Amino acid sequence: MLNVCFRMDKTHTPLSPEPIKVATLHTAENSTAEAAAGRLTARIDGALDRYSQFEDGCPPELGEAIRYALLAPGKRLRPRLVLLAAEACGGVVDEALPAACAVEMIHTYSLVHDDLPAMDDDDLRRGRPTCHKIFGEALAILVGDALLARALEILATDVKPADRAARCCAALGRAAGATALVGGQASDLAGGVTGDDVPSLESIHRRKTGALITASLELGGIVAGAVPERLAALREYGQLLGLAFQITDDLLDVAGSQAAVGKRLAKDADCGKATYPQLLGIEASRDRAAELVERACGAVAVFGDAAQPLVEIARFVRDRNR
Amino acid sequence: MLNVCFRMDKTHTPLSPEPIKVATLHTAENSTAEAAAGRLTARIDGALDRYSQFEDGCPPELGEAIRYALLAPGKRLRPRLVLLAAEACGGVVDEALPAACAVEMIHTYSLVHDDLPAMDDDDLRRGRPTCHKIFGEALAILVGDALLARALEILATDVKPADRAARCCAALGRAAGATALVGGQASDLAGGVTGDDVPSLESIHRRKTGALITASLELGGIVAGAVPERLAALREYGQLLGLAFQITDDLLDVAGSQAAVGKRLAKDADCGKATYPQLLGIEASRDRAAELVERACGAVAVFGDAAQPLVEIARFVRDRNR
Repeated sequence: MLNVCFRMDKTHTPLSPEPIKVATLHTAENSTAEAAAGRLTARIDGALDRYSQFEDGCPPELGEAIRYALLAPGKRLRPRLVLLAAEACGGVVDEALPAACAVEMIHTYSLVHDDLPAMDDDDLRRGRPTCHKIFGEALAILVGDALLARALEILATDVKPADRAARCCAALGRAAGATALVGGQASDLAGGVTGDDVPSLESIHRRKTGALITASLELGGIVAGAVPERLAALREYGQLLGLAFQITDDLLDVAGSQAAVGKRLAKDADCGKATYPQLLGIEASRDRAAELVERACGAVAVFGDAAQPLVEIARFVRDRNR
Repeated sequence: MLNVCFRMDKTHTPLSPEPIKVATLHTAENSTAEAAAGRLTARIDGALDRYSQFEDGCPPELGEAIRYALLAPGKRLRPRLVLLAAEACGGVVDEALPAACAVEMIHTYSLVHDDLPAMDDDDLRRGRPTCHKIFGEALAILVGDALLARALEILATDVKPADRAARCCAALGRAAGATALVGGQASDLAGGVTGDDVPSLESIHRRKTGALITASLELGGIVAGAVPERLAALREYGQLLGLAFQITDDLLDVAGSQAAVGKRLAKDADCGKATYPQLLGIEASRDRAAELVERACGAVAVFGDAAQPLVEIARFVRDRNR
């Protein structure tokens, strides 16, 4: 069942920070943005590595499968949003890293389960065979379960003080649950939207994609002790960015490069599922994503200069090619 | 996909407390014990019912599938242990109900996932078709995911004050994770113990069954503000009881009634997996369970009369027929 090509153990070369390719950000100023993104990604990857080294009791193949899924090269968008939200609120990266890792674990668990044959049945993820293709379905189910439990354990243990930990657990538990992430996936599996119903499409994406992106911002704010008004601004940014992210995901699905995106493309159309480009057209979808991103940036204007990295990452989402 | 015979919605008759059949507890004194167990079970079932009514965002079929799995008649052993541990430490049932429900949700999620075709492939659970037989594999995977997330959300939201909530989330997240519940299932799936290796068998059961039973006791103690010595006593009781529970599970697997137990029996032997009766013999297994139960009762002697319900439930585990 094991394919040693994909082993990732302690002797493996540490994941290097990935360069971020953003078509519209190739100015001198944005070299700084890329460097900053690389700095955060390296911190996140280091913490994910530490948090996925389990003590006695975790069978070696389970640990290996968890690390295969979790440490695969990803954009780390959600954990970066956690860290940037915390920094925008005056917090520091070290305090926010546990929450950043917890969010990435929830994201990874959802990918592993969504890729299962009984679900979306995908073979390729983050440019590699999906977890169940390497480790089998049973272990892939358990990988997801273990990541979900671990995410909440990390929040509860390492976010300080305890009232912030409890609020983070409540927010992430809700975002991962039946009315959000899982509910959106269930609606999508039930057939998604097959007519021309943009509000229904947005309802699925608000839950399946938007809720976890919004929770990323919220967790960053909670960890940094943000006041309610600032938390509300972060949530608004997250909701708008989440929707923009899904639109660009749909655009990549019809016009992206599979090698760059790292997963099977043109899938929604093959399944007869409605997408933004199909409902609105490609140009209008791009315009809608751009408008949402500008509104997201407006929502965090209250943070002043401290919001600049959030503005930059929102524009990365608008212009992304992967 | 839906079988309306098994629908459980808000118009369904509330689950009535089940009588507990314990061969050796038919004395006048133990009618009181049965009445007390029925009282707790009714409180637990009521709270599970409330906690599984989801707001907007949860697709109806997902909500129905969650309630089908969660509200099926069960022994409610683990949530009763949470409540009894809290009461032994001077706590009250109301304060401990969120933790009791969280533990039962984790237990139910693990049953739903373990029953999947890719895992143990079981058709019968709690006397009914398993969740995936009624709702399909994809929804059964999502039911487990949603229950796991909901359990932690409930702990984080409804256990007060926040430092107890965070400690409960940490303990339950760990008990549900890669070094405990999930790790034990992964070891079991990898073939369990096929030789005559009692320590390896116990290692699997300590994780797969014992960790959640131990966490039930621990959560009850945390919620009630128990001091470290009392928490340690509860954990010791839980570890011993968890092992005794697994031995009686193995005994029921070879000598129980499928109608009473409500799941497929003689399964481990069919799979060539080692069990206690096979390694030790039936009589020696009974003796070992009885010895563990007596040691468990000894561990909580420090609580005095307040431990009596924990003593009674331990003897129920020793003598159970389901």
